[in-house]
Amino acid sequence: MLRFIASQLTMPLFFKISIFFFFVSTSLSSSPLEYNHPLESLTLFELTQVTNIVKNSYFPLNVTFHYVGLNEPNKQLVLSWLSSTHHPSLPREAIVITRIDQKTHEIIVDLSSVSILSDKIYNGHGYPMLTLQEQTAANELPLSYPPFISSIKKRRLKLKEVACQGYPVGWYGEEKKSTNRMVKVICYYLDGTVNLYMRPIEGITIIVLLDQMTIASYIDRLIVPVPKANGTDYMGSKRRRSSHESNSIKIVQPDGPSFTLDDGNTVRWVDWKFHVAYDMRAGIIISLASMFDDDKGEFRSVMYRGFASEVFVPYMDLTEEWYYRTYFNAGEFGFGLCAVELEPSKDCPENAKFIDGYFISQDGTPGKMPNVICIFERYAGDIMWRHTEDAIPGEKYFSFISKNLELQIRKIRPEVGLTGLLEVRGSIYTHSDQIKEEVYGTLIAENTLGAYHDHFFTYHLDLDVDGHENSFVKNNLKTRRVIHKSSPRKSYWTVVSETAETESDAKIQLGSSRGAFEMVVVNPNKKTEIGNEIGYCLIPGGSATSPLLSDNDYPQARGGFTKYNVWVTPYNKSEKWAGGLYTDQSHGDDTLAVWSLRKIKNKDIILWYTFGVHHVPKQEDFPIMPTLSTGFELKPTNFFQHNPVL
Amino acid sequence: MLRFIASQLTMPLFFKISIFFFFVSTSLSSSPLEYNHPLESLTLFELTQVTNIVKNSYFPLNVTFHYVGLNEPNKQLVLSWLSSTHHPSLPREAIVITRIDQKTHEIIVDLSSVSILSDKIYNGHGYPMLTLQEQTAANELPLSYPPFISSIKKRRLKLKEVACQGYPVGWYGEEKKSTNRMVKVICYYLDGTVNLYMRPIEGITIIVLLDQMTIASYIDRLIVPVPKANGTDYMGSKRRRSSHESNSIKIVQPDGPSFTLDDGNTVRWVDWKFHVAYDMRAGIIISLASMFDDDKGEFRSVMYRGFASEVFVPYMDLTEEWYYRTYFNAGEFGFGLCAVELEPSKDCPENAKFIDGYFISQDGTPGKMPNVICIFERYAGDIMWRHTEDAIPGEKYFSFISKNLELQIRKIRPEVGLTGLLEVRGSIYTHSDQIKEEVYGTLIAENTLGAYHDHFFTYHLDLDVDGHENSFVKNNLKTRRVIHKSSPRKSYWTVVSETAETESDAKIQLGSSRGAFEMVVVNPNKKTEIGNEIGYCLIPGGSATSPLLSDNDYPQARGGFTKYNVWVTPYNKSEKWAGGLYTDQSHGDDTLAVWSLRKIKNKDIILWYTFGVHHVPKQEDFPIMPTLSTGFELKPTNFFQHNPVL
Repeated sequence: MLRFIASQLTMPLFFKISIFFFFVSTSLSSSPLEYNHPLESLTLFELTQVTNIVKNSYFPLNVTFHYVGLNEPNKQLVLSWLSSTHHPSLPREAIVITRIDQKTHEIIVDLSSVSILSDKIYNGHGYPMLTLQEQTAANELPLSYPPFISSIKKRRLKLKEVACQGYPVGWYGEEKKSTNRMVKVICYYLDGTVNLYMRPIEGITIIVLLDQMTIASYIDRLIVPVPKANGTDYMGSKRRRSSHESNSIKIVQPDGPSFTLDDGNTVRWVDWKFHVAYDMRAGIIISLASMFDDDKGEFRSVMYRGFASEVFVPYMDLTEEWYYRTYFNAGEFGFGLCAVELEPSKDCPENAKFIDGYFISQDGTPGKMPNVICIFERYAGDIMWRHTEDAIPGEKYFSFISKNLELQIRKIRPEVGLTGLLEVRGSIYTHSDQIKEEVYGTLIAENTLGAYHDHFFTYHLDLDVDGHENSFVKNNLKTRRVIHKSSPRKSYWTVVSETAETESDAKIQLGSSRGAFEMVVVNPNKKTEIGNEIGYCLIPGGSATSPLLSDNDYPQARGGFTKYNVWVTPYNKSEKWAGGLYTDQSHGDDTLAVWSLRKIKNKDIILWYTFGVHHVPKQEDFPIMPTLSTGFELKPTNFFQHNPVL
Repeated sequence: MLRFIASQLTMPLFFKISIFFFFVSTSLSSSPLEYNHPLESLTLFELTQVTNIVKNSYFPLNVTFHYVGLNEPNKQLVLSWLSSTHHPSLPREAIVITRIDQKTHEIIVDLSSVSILSDKIYNGHGYPMLTLQEQTAANELPLSYPPFISSIKKRRLKLKEVACQGYPVGWYGEEKKSTNRMVKVICYYLDGTVNLYMRPIEGITIIVLLDQMTIASYIDRLIVPVPKANGTDYMGSKRRRSSHESNSIKIVQPDGPSFTLDDGNTVRWVDWKFHVAYDMRAGIIISLASMFDDDKGEFRSVMYRGFASEVFVPYMDLTEEWYYRTYFNAGEFGFGLCAVELEPSKDCPENAKFIDGYFISQDGTPGKMPNVICIFERYAGDIMWRHTEDAIPGEKYFSFISKNLELQIRKIRPEVGLTGLLEVRGSIYTHSDQIKEEVYGTLIAENTLGAYHDHFFTYHLDLDVDGHENSFVKNNLKTRRVIHKSSPRKSYWTVVSETAETESDAKIQLGSSRGAFEMVVVNPNKKTEIGNEIGYCLIPGGSATSPLLSDNDYPQARGGFTKYNVWVTPYNKSEKWAGGLYTDQSHGDDTLAVWSLRKIKNKDIILWYTFGVHHVPKQEDFPIMPTLSTGFELKPTNFFQHNPVL
């Protein structure tokens, strides 16, 4: 993948190229659904059906496809499919989000009857995910736009060395409903390097209307030196050799991997069984995770579904060209859509198995993304799913993200690794002593400011702990004082449990909660033989961070789901996206934070967990940021009668 | 190692046997010091010298040896040795802690002149570490003590199936200075299992005076059923097979490891260089860690020394036989003394190299502990030091601990893994519904309570960031409100730095500190080319836990160093042990918490970091606890001009 990029240096937005490169025509390998797992992602054949059905229905109108995914059967249906012995085929449906005649359509397609089941026009705030094609088109507009060409001349730069990148515009309190999908386009100067993002051309703001694909506004406000970005070439061939290089190191499994991956993408490994799927928006989805209990001689459910619902990335730079940069990576760009092919032995070790992803591009052409997910065992005896997402357009800092959902024996450990390129601002400063004003970041190289920003990762975790009716329990560790000299000790701590009745009881801001506690999803209808409640515990990692933006700030209203690290909601098939279904230009009126006071005790509940990092850039992050890994754990808590490894 | 234990089931205290087993007579391999690294641990030859010098000096008195370690040269001397080209041999000295005639002696031995430099009698509170031999002797006393034999008969148990274990008695406010070293001995019932610790014989308290090796007090208070402990045999041969076993997985380095380990135990790996040493109390010590900077063409210092200074483990059970169980694992037992041999391909992977440890037993006999430290590279390209400690007598829950000090490129990541056997209390209860009183724990099996407890790990980190005069800086992330509509945004955050002037400015309790901040050790005398302060940042892990015991409780006074997660002190050669040099029966008058208000700005400073876990036992922890890993990171912060991997 990197080699390909190296040979395409003059192309703008090289990250996106890696995706287009692997487009496969549907005529090559389309086939009807071969397996009958009800949660299996849509196949190439099914995606072709979807395109044909929707296009035919609107012919000759132009339909642009923004999202196509499996409209999975109701949970009860899936659970009865799972418990039946013959696994009957369930109806297959697709959910399609399109723009037709400048309106957003939410279309449900029934693939068995080859027909449209419903077609709803969405009139609320917010727009669907951007498509890759419209971003590319928007990025090319300035290059032939005379005012931009003259701005480049004025800066004594060469036009052929310029590449541009569109960014979502967000929402900043405009009361009138937005009637236009748009991006702000920012341009960069290559000048013989691949690391164009280290050389922003500051001072120019270009607004592009996406449905019309025209430039609606052009402002050239000020001239700032383009950073020299010396030594920022991260390609192998140009890298300086370290004085000592390390020897190669390999993982070997002489008898092959211990897991099986059947054609329906069900993974079986040691005592675990679960399903893996690819989705254009969520990227990787783990479903129906259950564990074989030797004592009981049966599989016991742990998680109905788990995936990364949103990643919110607000920047803290208030200058004209920066204030709006407050990204929602899943809702605006789609994790799955930005995925890149994983290279065997490079992104994933020798012992990995790979899963392909299938998606649909703006014009309806279905495509295959080979090897977007890999599965392998690690030395410690654990297993890890690695899923690398690259090229989230408009978010270069975040341009490489790998997500690992790791299932050790019994534990589930989702992890994210942040790396890639910092998003930097050109500046007049060459030394920090010169800086006397607020610059909203760290001077990380000459003329280069690394802007302060946050990353908040929100996971949707539909735990079904030994059944789907569960409760959320907070076990508070409380200090008790010893009175009347009843013991030589003066204190100890004990556990006082509270069960959340409603959603509002379960909101937890970890950074500000004094005292110690455990957070457990329990099954109140089952107990262990000696009478303990069966549960799975949420173990936060080191990044239980809360937002620092004020509650009334517009980006924070849109990202309101980050206010608490933990939320618990009752199951609702339509509540998948913490930032709402239509995130681009959203007003925050359809987020996890506005879903409300429903009862959650002894119900089918969803645990939402947000962790994050406040990033103060350092010189070490320049020009490419070392991987920062963080995550959390889900751990059995009196789920088993005893340590199940024995 | 485990195989050995399996064949010695009738022996009490099988964990300790593994240590005795590898004693090597000094006549076999003693030799004079061959290398001249000033921080190299004492060799067998030197330990033999120490024994002879001290024993001769006190002949014919009986001398018991509690600790012998390198009395390292002054830091300035070590640093000039390091920077000189010919590395002259520095004087070798040993520090020896002995009991002679029921008094604690602190003796400095000069190995070059083969003489005693100083000999100080310690009269304060607290005693040196327990020796392995005296623990074994104490544990055997009850087995021939008539009142105990009759207690066992009264319980209808077989004496030959009983094994005992001594525990430190702590301090509970007695004002008179203790004049006796003692342990309380608790007994367990084997009855054909190796997992004796799951079968405590409750109700009996036996106080043994260690210097006299006599039983001073015997109480048989009540009879409680001995837990059945069914299915608790953790030995391989008796383990039930899981329905699916995983295939073997190996790490292979065709060209061998990338690091070198010279005879003086200096490790060189990629850009890192550092020294590894074994110590009877600290276990593993990493010293003189520095990184080669390609830009500057020289090694730059990062850490003068790092090691785990103390682990404080208070239990929360106030019953007569339990209230005193508040252990200090390093100060009472010694990490290094409790280390076990690491088995190649089992404890450490195929590509590991091993380091031996040398120590001295109670009677002065020097011994070799082979393979107590291993070093290997991991798949991610990082390197890890693994150090396994087993068999901390008196602390079965903690009986297996492995500590990993991991140096990735640039980062230093100390980690601990907790596993081993829970310390359980026998109980009348067989189902949690029967429990109507405070039982101080979780019913984890029939008649078996897992007591609530904490583990606090305190690290001593003598960072020398690019030189030894450093400052401790707190970078506070502060929310700023936007006023006068100067931006469409309403808020952002920025960084406000505070430099600690004195020790009291640098005390940080992470759980209760509102707001976000970074903690950085900077070198205020050096800056990067673009003017940023050069530093290393402390990144807490998920376990930045604070104590829940009340401040005036005796165990908390002794473990007062856990009150803050971060302390910074000026360098002082004698301040190595967070809980004081003499921890057994200490009163808390020589801990990190009482060291005071000294200046720390632009000084040679030590960063002390404490993290911990509150452990509410679960059924999954029975009968052997799955590994719980936790730790923290030290990460460069504008230490380099740019990402050094490029």
